[in-house]
Amino acid sequence: MSSRSEAITCEFCIALQVRVLYCITGASSLVLKPKTTDDVSRIMAHCDKRHLAVVPQGGNTGLVGGSVPVFDEVVLSTALMNKILDLDEISGVVTCQAGCILETLDDHVAERGLAMPLDLGAKASCHIGGNVSTSAGGLRLIRYGSLHGSVLGLEAVLASGEVLDCMSGMRKDNTGYDLKQLLIGSEGTLGVVTKVAILCPSRPAAVNVALLACNSFADVLKTLQKGKAMLSEILSAFELIDSASMMAVEKYLHLRNPLSSGEFYCLIETSGSHAGHDEEKLTAFLDSVMEEGSVCDGTVAQGITQQKDLWALRERVAEALLREGYTYKYDVSLPTRHFYDIVVDMRRHLAGAAVLGCYGYGHVGDGNVHLNVTTRQYDADVGHRIEPYVFEWVRGRHGSISAEHGLGFKKRDFIHYSKAASAVAWMKRFKTLMDPNGILNPYKTLPE
Amino acid sequence: MSSRSEAITCEFCIALQVRVLYCITGASSLVLKPKTTDDVSRIMAHCDKRHLAVVPQGGNTGLVGGSVPVFDEVVLSTALMNKILDLDEISGVVTCQAGCILETLDDHVAERGLAMPLDLGAKASCHIGGNVSTSAGGLRLIRYGSLHGSVLGLEAVLASGEVLDCMSGMRKDNTGYDLKQLLIGSEGTLGVVTKVAILCPSRPAAVNVALLACNSFADVLKTLQKGKAMLSEILSAFELIDSASMMAVEKYLHLRNPLSSGEFYCLIETSGSHAGHDEEKLTAFLDSVMEEGSVCDGTVAQGITQQKDLWALRERVAEALLREGYTYKYDVSLPTRHFYDIVVDMRRHLAGAAVLGCYGYGHVGDGNVHLNVTTRQYDADVGHRIEPYVFEWVRGRHGSISAEHGLGFKKRDFIHYSKAASAVAWMKRFKTLMDPNGILNPYKTLPE
Repeated sequence: MSSRSEAITCEFCIALQVRVLYCITGASSLVLKPKTTDDVSRIMAHCDKRHLAVVPQGGNTGLVGGSVPVFDEVVLSTALMNKILDLDEISGVVTCQAGCILETLDDHVAERGLAMPLDLGAKASCHIGGNVSTSAGGLRLIRYGSLHGSVLGLEAVLASGEVLDCMSGMRKDNTGYDLKQLLIGSEGTLGVVTKVAILCPSRPAAVNVALLACNSFADVLKTLQKGKAMLSEILSAFELIDSASMMAVEKYLHLRNPLSSGEFYCLIETSGSHAGHDEEKLTAFLDSVMEEGSVCDGTVAQGITQQKDLWALRERVAEALLREGYTYKYDVSLPTRHFYDIVVDMRRHLAGAAVLGCYGYGHVGDGNVHLNVTTRQYDADVGHRIEPYVFEWVRGRHGSISAEHGLGFKKRDFIHYSKAASAVAWMKRFKTLMDPNGILNPYKTLPE
Repeated sequence: MSSRSEAITCEFCIALQVRVLYCITGASSLVLKPKTTDDVSRIMAHCDKRHLAVVPQGGNTGLVGGSVPVFDEVVLSTALMNKILDLDEISGVVTCQAGCILETLDDHVAERGLAMPLDLGAKASCHIGGNVSTSAGGLRLIRYGSLHGSVLGLEAVLASGEVLDCMSGMRKDNTGYDLKQLLIGSEGTLGVVTKVAILCPSRPAAVNVALLACNSFADVLKTLQKGKAMLSEILSAFELIDSASMMAVEKYLHLRNPLSSGEFYCLIETSGSHAGHDEEKLTAFLDSVMEEGSVCDGTVAQGITQQKDLWALRERVAEALLREGYTYKYDVSLPTRHFYDIVVDMRRHLAGAAVLGCYGYGHVGDGNVHLNVTTRQYDADVGHRIEPYVFEWVRGRHGSISAEHGLGFKKRDFIHYSKAASAVAWMKRFKTLMDPNGILNPYKTLPE
């Protein structure tokens, strides 16, 4: 079996070092597809004994090279670990193997009036084990919180082959250290997640999607604050598309912006249990923000097709920018008041550079901005003007240089911009304790 | 300075071993009250060097002896670390020192339309650092989730005096291992929490409280499922009081049960942003459960006074049982369908013993039952009939022997009933790595 990506040998990697930083491909001469936890345990024990490096791989949808072999690591794919083991309809807890695809799980729990507590663009192919290992965020974190809250139980195989059993279907369990939390977001460097138990909320009976135009980012902030207050418990997404990003989806993907003008576009979604109440709340909110002038134009989707069309304007920005040329992608968290400052500042900073555009979009409700810069083709000079400038900028505002994409291979050496030296030192100590031979997903997460 | 509790010397402790298991008191000849993280750091460095054991202490409201010195440990009180450092009104993140009292914080964020994401009986005296260190659950976990989800940043001083800086006000930060999670719920055995940043939800504009009577636990389950579906996003508490507990608050505290009959009483709270909508949802829900017959009687509180009166019926059960005699207290999580089976089974199991009553109440919406058994006075024979039987029973249903109270001193040796041996072994390794001299809260959490 072979990995789906092209080969990069050690020499090749060094030769293409700069390119590798922006576009991760990798190869392995061995891809193993275990079916059970015991299979994983035996694989890990064997590899640990022989000091063979292993890359755990789920749906391979990550954006920082976390699931890609760097040299010749053995790929351990969870593709065949796809059994749904249990669904407790009363508590709403679904238990499954790590290789279950997020969308498959969501369809399964939907039959019982439940929803998975996360949703992301890659849902049709990403594995829940990968979601948990990378602490995936996504579109509805504003409503359902992070996986640190919704993962109730976890089983992982450690580097030695030992099975760490932290499985529980209980919402409350205060019996000692919550070890599973260390695995959530550790990108497969501490263990291979093999099973999870996740709390699912009630599936909303009614969903509304609106697109609103604002003339300034100050108006976006006013709209966000009013939305949190007036839509409160039914607010399930508050996303931003700047006018440059909107023009990109119109130009490259021929999508239609239903609003006539605006510097910023807010995509707002409500999800609730009562269609009439939700519509009333949304209408009152829209009346209020139009009246006070923070929103200059807006539309509410009529039916699912229109909802999908509005969502496409936000979800397909990255795809549109790929058509423009090479994209320098940054996924950062900032205090919400600085959310868009980074885009404005980057435009100023890159004035005169061979840059096609500088774009800002993302999860403004969570303070998570996707900053994208495009050039006709990869340009090392532009890269060096952006980095480490962008990371220093984020550090200066106490933000995070990786809000939801993780560190993987691409960003591990920038960890110091977001983590204190003491925290990085402790990460290394935990890594050494749990994986003394360093076989689990080497060259990822931890800095050189 | 001296600790508020009576002295237990080493010999005394051995002599009173059985009693100590049920009623934790302790003493120290030294209580230190640092004001800053730097003070804590210097205290810990000094104590570590001299191998002096330290008990971190917040509001001292725990129920398992986690904050009480067992022998002669130095008490490190967070009482003077009570500064609120920041409140970001847009994101809703409050940042403060560990010694802030929960109620003070809630009052502070209320001025900006926000609420603390946890609420518990001890809110007027418990410290937020203690809440985080014990992963406190409380009354509204069903709505706002656990502290593993809502604590965004944390600073702790480790045994060596090193400051572990995991402070962040970001909702999303995927830059490496989420180390702060290890501190949440570790009961001060891995570090002294000195600062936290917590995400606060919007403060609800409308609150409704209803008390419903059901004739069987099967009906309680039907009511819970319907409540989760129909009240969904506005459901903020779903609590249970069995008829024995209800009679106890009537008998010992002279509280008035407004309903005429019922084997079980469900206290349901809704919190939302629109009073009219919430009332409509609640009415529709009540009509539905009355019509299908799963609820035989019910009342909705009119005004805050009546709401408090209904809440008192649930919140004061423990206090009522103290008036009856000695109380054997268990705080366990179970799959919801087994929630009340443990009470029924314990009554059967204790038939013929000198027991006054066997009571079940608690957070049925979270699967967290408080099982209380009363005797006229402490009776070792009864204790031995209950333990380890109760823990074996919980283990048999894959529950947790401590849902929200923690392990502390009282329950640490029962950890194996809820944690796999591999998990306990890893807890010990982490403890040894982070506190090699074992000075931080010894005799707590980890088994002998």
